[in-house]
Amino acid sequence: MPFTAPVAEQKFVLQHIAHIADLGVDDDILDAVLEGAGAFAEGEWAPLARAGDTAGPTWTDAGVKMPKGYGAAYKAYVEGGWGTIGSPEGFGGQGMPFVLAAAVLETLGAANMGFALAPTLTVGAIEALLHHGSPEQQALYLPKLSTGEWTGTMNLTEPQAGSDVGALRSRAVPRGDGTYAIQGTKIFISFGDHDMADNIVHLVLARTPDAPAGTKGLSLFLVPKYRLDADGNPGEPNDIRVVSIEHKMGLHASPTCVLSFGDNGDCVGELIGPEFGGIRAMFTMMNNARLNVGLQGVQVAEAATQRAVAYARDRMQGARAGAGVAIVEHPDVRRMLLRMKAQTMAARALVYYACGQVDRANAGDAEARALLDLLTPLAKAHGTDIGCEVASIGVQVHGGMGYIEETGAAQHYRDARITPIYEGTNGIQAADLVGRKLALAPGLIARMQGEVEDAGLRALVEACGEVGGVLATAAQDDRLAASYPFLTMFSVAVCGWLMEQQGRIADAGETPFLKLKAAACRFYVAQIVPEALGLKAAALASAEMLYAVDAETLAA
Amino acid sequence: MPFTAPVAEQKFVLQHIAHIADLGVDDDILDAVLEGAGAFAEGEWAPLARAGDTAGPTWTDAGVKMPKGYGAAYKAYVEGGWGTIGSPEGFGGQGMPFVLAAAVLETLGAANMGFALAPTLTVGAIEALLHHGSPEQQALYLPKLSTGEWTGTMNLTEPQAGSDVGALRSRAVPRGDGTYAIQGTKIFISFGDHDMADNIVHLVLARTPDAPAGTKGLSLFLVPKYRLDADGNPGEPNDIRVVSIEHKMGLHASPTCVLSFGDNGDCVGELIGPEFGGIRAMFTMMNNARLNVGLQGVQVAEAATQRAVAYARDRMQGARAGAGVAIVEHPDVRRMLLRMKAQTMAARALVYYACGQVDRANAGDAEARALLDLLTPLAKAHGTDIGCEVASIGVQVHGGMGYIEETGAAQHYRDARITPIYEGTNGIQAADLVGRKLALAPGLIARMQGEVEDAGLRALVEACGEVGGVLATAAQDDRLAASYPFLTMFSVAVCGWLMEQQGRIADAGETPFLKLKAAACRFYVAQIVPEALGLKAAALASAEMLYAVDAETLAA
Repeated sequence: MPFTAPVAEQKFVLQHIAHIADLGVDDDILDAVLEGAGAFAEGEWAPLARAGDTAGPTWTDAGVKMPKGYGAAYKAYVEGGWGTIGSPEGFGGQGMPFVLAAAVLETLGAANMGFALAPTLTVGAIEALLHHGSPEQQALYLPKLSTGEWTGTMNLTEPQAGSDVGALRSRAVPRGDGTYAIQGTKIFISFGDHDMADNIVHLVLARTPDAPAGTKGLSLFLVPKYRLDADGNPGEPNDIRVVSIEHKMGLHASPTCVLSFGDNGDCVGELIGPEFGGIRAMFTMMNNARLNVGLQGVQVAEAATQRAVAYARDRMQGARAGAGVAIVEHPDVRRMLLRMKAQTMAARALVYYACGQVDRANAGDAEARALLDLLTPLAKAHGTDIGCEVASIGVQVHGGMGYIEETGAAQHYRDARITPIYEGTNGIQAADLVGRKLALAPGLIARMQGEVEDAGLRALVEACGEVGGVLATAAQDDRLAASYPFLTMFSVAVCGWLMEQQGRIADAGETPFLKLKAAACRFYVAQIVPEALGLKAAALASAEMLYAVDAETLAA
Repeated sequence: MPFTAPVAEQKFVLQHIAHIADLGVDDDILDAVLEGAGAFAEGEWAPLARAGDTAGPTWTDAGVKMPKGYGAAYKAYVEGGWGTIGSPEGFGGQGMPFVLAAAVLETLGAANMGFALAPTLTVGAIEALLHHGSPEQQALYLPKLSTGEWTGTMNLTEPQAGSDVGALRSRAVPRGDGTYAIQGTKIFISFGDHDMADNIVHLVLARTPDAPAGTKGLSLFLVPKYRLDADGNPGEPNDIRVVSIEHKMGLHASPTCVLSFGDNGDCVGELIGPEFGGIRAMFTMMNNARLNVGLQGVQVAEAATQRAVAYARDRMQGARAGAGVAIVEHPDVRRMLLRMKAQTMAARALVYYACGQVDRANAGDAEARALLDLLTPLAKAHGTDIGCEVASIGVQVHGGMGYIEETGAAQHYRDARITPIYEGTNGIQAADLVGRKLALAPGLIARMQGEVEDAGLRALVEACGEVGGVLATAAQDDRLAASYPFLTMFSVAVCGWLMEQQGRIADAGETPFLKLKAAACRFYVAQIVPEALGLKAAALASAEMLYAVDAETLAA
């Protein structure tokens, strides 16, 4: 089934939810970027998605080899300038809004989710260097990262330190010339090695000698795969070894590496930002990366939905009105498809809305910064939860064929499942919401209360206000116990608010897209919003219920 | 992580929900069967689960070869008499209740889900022959099927006929000697071929010449892999070709075959029951098979939960109270684990409760027959929905390790996903509920109303009564549009009722198991029941919303 970029939908959300005109992007540019990225992704990246899943990258002594076609398709991406959309103007980028770059990334990832992780990670490296790098580092690295000629990675996780980055042990020892000798093993490094780019810029969290324990002792280092020569070109290989690539359930096109730095004591890195500034720099990378992972939920939901709709229109089964009909005509299949559409649109609206705040915050808007902080855990966690749900419904729509790998629905289901885990598990997002962001919620809730029209949606928004108020003064464990149900309620409330807004605009339209938009928005408010109200009891329950038995008894 | 059969829990549910004492099974027998099956499954079947997933069966010219160890483990199953538990006494079986056989099957499947599909399918063949076979057929086939020396298959699906069995085209032409020449291609045949048993008894739905169109023209045929010789032993191979085995997302230990019958015009089958009695015989097989698929939801949920609890107790991460602690102590991880426990127990209670009605109905209890008819779609659909949900939470509890295949959590997630699809998709179950079973609901709802205590649970039960009443007089499309949300609401109400009953009993206990049981029941009623009430709006929505746009617009 050929992938088609959802240009009309993306444009609608960029215009009416992200208000991209206010960010200086006019309709002509918008059309050119969305249509161009769509045509590129449809033609060059989507056809490689299945090969990425089945063949996948391979580990060799000489490094990771990508499957056939990926090198050329990546080169076409660089040459087409698709990496430069949101990159900084002073460094070879086009300086367009982050939210527009997100739309382009969505298209690439919907076409080929695993592949699109390479540019996604590169964005994180660019952000870190832009905000924390020295002018020299920026001049040397940003132009190549902007175009995608070089790719970036984030090296956080170690075997004993996953969500708990404060526990990591990698070392960075001054070499006396301003550089550091890096030593340690990092796991789960997406695109930690590959053969598509001239260099790979690893951003590595490590500890300097005598650093304090925990997160405050972390520093961030720039560790290139190839050290730069006097002209700034990749020269001698650094002392980095690809130990292995993981056997993952999905996202096979993305090589997930175990990297060993400094086995021979000769891995050279440079500090990014001040010593002990690692955790702050990490959050710079991570916050936007979290939005881009939420965006992966949109990617996989879009791809799964397109595939399911096409199958359901094609597959004849059962008799309605006497003759065989396509399964799309069966009410419960309709329900599944409309749910897929509505959830995908809701996730897109939520993520684009949050991404639009990045641009406003970057321009100095403090209110947008606060809103972004509040929306980031919602976009990451709920966007990815939707991706998993929609991919699962997609398998179901296909019936038995959905379980056969050749059909492609199963790949979406497998690909999607990592997204609630990485870049901070969704549980961590929920903890972030109730731990650091609760004070930011009342403003948004008040605004939604003033705008929502549907009675059920109003009830949900009010319930969010009530629960948020209770949690604000609750004991920490009670807050954490309620965090996930509250995150889901609140996310659905925000999505409902955004969907209702879109529905009002779409109701006036006559094009097939606007009719579909209106129907999906109506479905969302009528059927999905009330479900979230069912979470209120859990969001008000205390931790006591969870600790009624101890850990050992839990295994009884 | 070694699998441990949940004997205390199984015994509790068999005693207090299935009331197995009333079925003539005393405590000594119960203990002996549950503990014996547990020890067997733990020792012989569980250790092969991963090899079944990674190596899997292979197609060869000479038929399907099972992975290393499976032949011996299957032989041990036959020799241990584990297949005979529920098989009819007159034919080599022990004639114990169906619900006890289900508990044994649960243990086998929790240890090795794909493998356990072989006995699961054999149960269906036994049921069909017992109810529709001739005395000669019963005498020839039932003893070997009872022990498992021969296995059974169900051959329904064809490429153009999945859920719509009326569309199938396989032919059966009288050969003049009372037998039929079978011709046709069947797909998705679980254990359609393998090398573990001396014979395979295929039950094949096909059309005789001049049969009417649709389901009423179907007849059921017994088509052995090897024709029986004069002594009733497997002799000449029948004309059945294994065309291929499917590349499935999971359940790899079970070879899913494409079978071609009668390529050389020499495939001999016998009619089971009367000509055109195929659909009735199919439902005999299918109804109990549906319960056993609901039971697969329990299997995978149990296995995933055990794995997640063990991981969470072992994995140190993050600091609570200053020192590193196992992640099981984090509130949101606790919430996930308790939810897994509660959902698994709820699915088990629902499925066992339904299975207990099989035994009562077989003994002539008309009320139990009606209850069974009502509960079957709930047990199948909601049991498998729970299996998928719990397996997904299991991946999440593992964090990044959950996405790595070696950990095992991902296998559960992949294995589980077929269960909402086969033996009638869960959408078909929902259609069955609102199409044929609605009139049976008020009796159960009234009974629940008289018994439930929790206010939220009472509200849910009452909502089920209200929605059921509305649907009973609704137009067909409106009923179908609401079918799935209603099925879920109703299933959770029944589970809530069964969990509350168990909670009352467990509250009086002091053992770790009873404390856990009480905590899980409390969690279920307090947190999961209210969620289901959130489905009421969708269960009362008409089909109009789903057809607001046509199929073409859905692809806009």
